[in-house]
Amino acid sequence: MATISRSSEFFTLVNVFAVAPEKQKELCGHLAQVTEELIQHLPGFVSASFHLSHDGEHVVNYAQWRTEADFRAMHADPRLKDHFTYCRSVSRPKPIFCDVTHSFDTTSQNGA
Amino acid sequence: MATISRSSEFFTLVNVFAVAPEKQKELCGHLAQVTEELIQHLPGFVSASFHLSHDGEHVVNYAQWRTEADFRAMHADPRLKDHFTYCRSVSRPKPIFCDVTHSFDTTSQNGA
Repeated sequence: MATISRSSEFFTLVNVFAVAPEKQKELCGHLAQVTEELIQHLPGFVSASFHLSHDGEHVVNYAQWRTEADFRAMHADPRLKDHFTYCRSVSRPKPIFCDVTHSFDTTSQNGA
Repeated sequence: MATISRSSEFFTLVNVFAVAPEKQKELCGHLAQVTEELIQHLPGFVSASFHLSHDGEHVVNYAQWRTEADFRAMHADPRLKDHFTYCRSVSRPKPIFCDVTHSFDTTSQNGA
């Protein structure tokens, strides 16, 4: 379980992978496996949540890192080179780095 | 604060709005205001979290509804017609409807 909050100050990445429908589940499973085995154990990892789109054409990762430097260190980790090569071979990743400005939910009605 | 979990079974929408940098904050503020005043009070609303991208060219909404029917009812609400017209006039929304398949975080290391 991950949490989204304006006050967290995490380095947040929404990565939308455009993928052919016949590769969607394979890509999503691969991302989850690499996260389980390696990425979640790296310094500064906070969360990663993977989503299959209903149209079959996207995988979405909502990810949080403690700092941008932690994220960049992960991205430069040589153990992940084959992983990124695979992702680019089957999909077009569109990473969006962003900050939470407002979060409304049914238990806190104040945009916290 | 919103939570992402594989077990929640919410109707999840990741909406990436492509927007000109000079309109980014205006759009994000507008989305938050309409959510605060109206959308969060509609039946089936669970959460909405708004994000400003670092590149200035996107606003991201990570939204959850109890069911797809609740989301569709919101979208058809005549009180929101001007809101959607405004959003389309300043941005190109790309809504991705999806399901959470895996969520890893630093407190639960099992892909729950």
